[in-house]
Amino acid sequence: MTDMEAGADRREVLVGAAATAALLASGGFGLAAEDVASVLKAIAAQHAASVKRLQDWIAFPSIAAEGRNTQEGAKYMAELAKDAGFQHVEVVPTSGVPGVFATLDAGAPITLGLYFMYDVKQFDLKEWSSPPLEGKLVPKPGFGTILVGRGATNQKGPEATFLAALHAMRAVGRKLPVNLVLVAEGEEEIGSPHFAEIVHRPDILAAMKKTVGVFMPSQSQGPTGSVEITLGAKGIIELELVSTGKRWGRGPTQDIHSSLKAAVDSPAWHLVEALQTLVSPDGNKVMVDGWYENVLPLTQHQKDLIAATARANPEADMMKQFHLSHWIDDLPYEQAMERLASQPTINIEGLVAGYTGPGGKTILPARAVAKLDCRLVPNQTRAEATAKLKTYLQKKGFGDLEVNVTGGYDPTETDENSTIIQAEVATYKALGHPPTMIPRGAGSWPGVVFTGPPLNLPAGHFGMGFGTGAHAPDEFLVVESTNPAIFGMDESTLAYVRFLHRVAGRSA
Amino acid sequence: MTDMEAGADRREVLVGAAATAALLASGGFGLAAEDVASVLKAIAAQHAASVKRLQDWIAFPSIAAEGRNTQEGAKYMAELAKDAGFQHVEVVPTSGVPGVFATLDAGAPITLGLYFMYDVKQFDLKEWSSPPLEGKLVPKPGFGTILVGRGATNQKGPEATFLAALHAMRAVGRKLPVNLVLVAEGEEEIGSPHFAEIVHRPDILAAMKKTVGVFMPSQSQGPTGSVEITLGAKGIIELELVSTGKRWGRGPTQDIHSSLKAAVDSPAWHLVEALQTLVSPDGNKVMVDGWYENVLPLTQHQKDLIAATARANPEADMMKQFHLSHWIDDLPYEQAMERLASQPTINIEGLVAGYTGPGGKTILPARAVAKLDCRLVPNQTRAEATAKLKTYLQKKGFGDLEVNVTGGYDPTETDENSTIIQAEVATYKALGHPPTMIPRGAGSWPGVVFTGPPLNLPAGHFGMGFGTGAHAPDEFLVVESTNPAIFGMDESTLAYVRFLHRVAGRSA
Repeated sequence: MTDMEAGADRREVLVGAAATAALLASGGFGLAAEDVASVLKAIAAQHAASVKRLQDWIAFPSIAAEGRNTQEGAKYMAELAKDAGFQHVEVVPTSGVPGVFATLDAGAPITLGLYFMYDVKQFDLKEWSSPPLEGKLVPKPGFGTILVGRGATNQKGPEATFLAALHAMRAVGRKLPVNLVLVAEGEEEIGSPHFAEIVHRPDILAAMKKTVGVFMPSQSQGPTGSVEITLGAKGIIELELVSTGKRWGRGPTQDIHSSLKAAVDSPAWHLVEALQTLVSPDGNKVMVDGWYENVLPLTQHQKDLIAATARANPEADMMKQFHLSHWIDDLPYEQAMERLASQPTINIEGLVAGYTGPGGKTILPARAVAKLDCRLVPNQTRAEATAKLKTYLQKKGFGDLEVNVTGGYDPTETDENSTIIQAEVATYKALGHPPTMIPRGAGSWPGVVFTGPPLNLPAGHFGMGFGTGAHAPDEFLVVESTNPAIFGMDESTLAYVRFLHRVAGRSA
Repeated sequence: MTDMEAGADRREVLVGAAATAALLASGGFGLAAEDVASVLKAIAAQHAASVKRLQDWIAFPSIAAEGRNTQEGAKYMAELAKDAGFQHVEVVPTSGVPGVFATLDAGAPITLGLYFMYDVKQFDLKEWSSPPLEGKLVPKPGFGTILVGRGATNQKGPEATFLAALHAMRAVGRKLPVNLVLVAEGEEEIGSPHFAEIVHRPDILAAMKKTVGVFMPSQSQGPTGSVEITLGAKGIIELELVSTGKRWGRGPTQDIHSSLKAAVDSPAWHLVEALQTLVSPDGNKVMVDGWYENVLPLTQHQKDLIAATARANPEADMMKQFHLSHWIDDLPYEQAMERLASQPTINIEGLVAGYTGPGGKTILPARAVAKLDCRLVPNQTRAEATAKLKTYLQKKGFGDLEVNVTGGYDPTETDENSTIIQAEVATYKALGHPPTMIPRGAGSWPGVVFTGPPLNLPAGHFGMGFGTGAHAPDEFLVVESTNPAIFGMDESTLAYVRFLHRVAGRSA
């Protein structure tokens, strides 16, 4: 607590001068400079409470892959929404993990959709330099004070920052400029297998239809402060490919002594042989028949967007961030970024067979598993790609392998001229951070539930601030920035307030 | 304790009638029928102590792969030797895990070499129906009372049974008919990387040179009671093949988000591609250049031995034991057994990359590992095969992969006309179990340390009794047999006594 209160006192000193100036400037979004100043004051006053709200949430992880805190996480999410001023809040059961539906009626003519995930990625305690559930505040040279914890940037950090904006508006006695409809899920990290069940419930669908679009809070700044808008995202299929002696009808049905290999087939070799048919010898091109037939090439405009983004993000920074010395196929940077946006993939997330401990163990395993994720681009679909994968395995003689799809969805795209995206652009510009745009992110989110039928809404991400380490150890977000180009949590909170006003102003 | 003492009281009832008759018959090995009876009585009297000695040993596992009880295991082994009557006993340091050297001078003209391993294979507690370190006595239909525990058959069970023979001889006040030289190691299960250091110490080598050959206590009976002599064993190389972004110079040097696959190479795919070059598409033939060039084909005599062994072991029993429905390449049984004896292999013991927990995790791993074991046949050598593997990987474009050899040795062979083997045959016959012979076992043991230069001694395994589950859960040995064809622990103890006399008689 002391650290956090001290942090609040240091606010005026720490916030970057350029950021402060941008924050205080009136954007003409129906928020006068004096209003901005009072909201910023409220945000500073509640800083410790906002950080603690995030730390408490981080301390209570929901992890669908592990069945951890799934019911409880939904309740927690519902409480957070209620506390932030949503009048109607309910936990929504699904055939998997429950979600949350909440509405905040501000009496405004415009309604904005909001997408939250309350689950986080798994973590391995021993890989972290600071405990992943403690959300410790630690100094980080070049950035300021960061909060380290699972979900710090993906996605509890930005979501808690947005909630802080709602609390601040209440603290200064102002109504929101837009109504809100929130849908939240607890299975984003396993491919959102039941999210459509939530959104497609008739009353929720009706509420969503009234929105001008949907956004997810996010930290859109890069390490140098540059802001990037992604106009879509790849789709994904997460699956396990499982080779067993039992299904194969060859090799052992239980692990046996490895000396028997000379007389016995191996399900592990069978998996290796199946895997290698899926990609080119360099591991980079998918060999599944018809995989690319629905892949749309990038338009010249999309390529231009990518080139502009590449110029704004130095190659050396990107390579450092990704722990790389070469791009795929030895491509030059810009082409690598085009490939990143445009190409579907099959990636190995994990391999598990037989003995996995230290040293060796002379067994011939009866079971071998590859954990794969396939990234899809327009106009591929999950159903199409899954069917093609199965057909191809069959054709290549690996029809016995189990293809256990655990989650996934189609790619998503949003028009850059839509209300949401234009409000994002205007807000970022007003904050002194004119954004670059990329046609789509290489990562995935279930935006297609909004952008696809029956809703056909624009959907994207918005938010200032910087964080990194999603899915990795030492995930963090910058809470108090000493870097003039990077927004801390409080400045990012105000950015959400301004974004809401921009959405209202633009649409009014 | 109660269970074991009750067990001792039941001896006369439980022991198979046929086995008893065979045990009591004089084999003309310098052991009169009345001596046999008194030794058998001593064995029965010490039954509870013998079982407890084995249980205590099992409760104290040495596992080199895990660095578990390595120093302590050697001391324990030394104490066991001292208690059994070895006059000179010492722990022998190596550059790895220490071994034990012990001699028992009985004033006999003949000296026999003895090889023990005091280490055991790793185990996974949750896979066992009875705790692997408790050595519980449980009934097993068709066999009698079995002892379940790690090492029960591989190799503490047979070794403890042999030690019981030495205790019994002392109990009846008789000197052994042969002198003994014992060498023991604690790294058998990781490929005996330092065993030659023990045997080649000048004084130990000198002691070994005086022996007529070396044997390891073993349970040579199959589940139907048939006895098999193996005249040799394959060699082995245990190794890890490791693909990393760091060594490759491509792909990430730390795990990164899996969405980046479209722009980044994958060390896991690199490993899969390297692996699949090692074997034919069915996973069964080694493709490494020159792998087979020193492989000796089986002689007609060797094939005849295999055929006789196959006839003695019904195919259905073998398939059941190995959890199989088809032999490799759909070979008929006898040919599968020929392939088992004659062909070298590369087997996948384990695969480990990236995320290995439940469900998925969207990462692109920076490191992927295959744990392999290569089985070698005469005249392949470990050095030759290792070099060929490395050269081949280099040629195929995978020279960056680490080849971490953790252990291994050359194949071993012993002449069937040697003293040891002939004594084995004669003893088994005298016990009513004329043996079959196979030219070599598919499994491996470091016999080449004895059969190769500079010792060039015959070396093999001897012992009655049945056990199974080596390297697997629920490993057991039959302690008290209700099956007339199978020797229990006490009958097997007397079989060692008779074997020692046969070695002395034959050579005297």
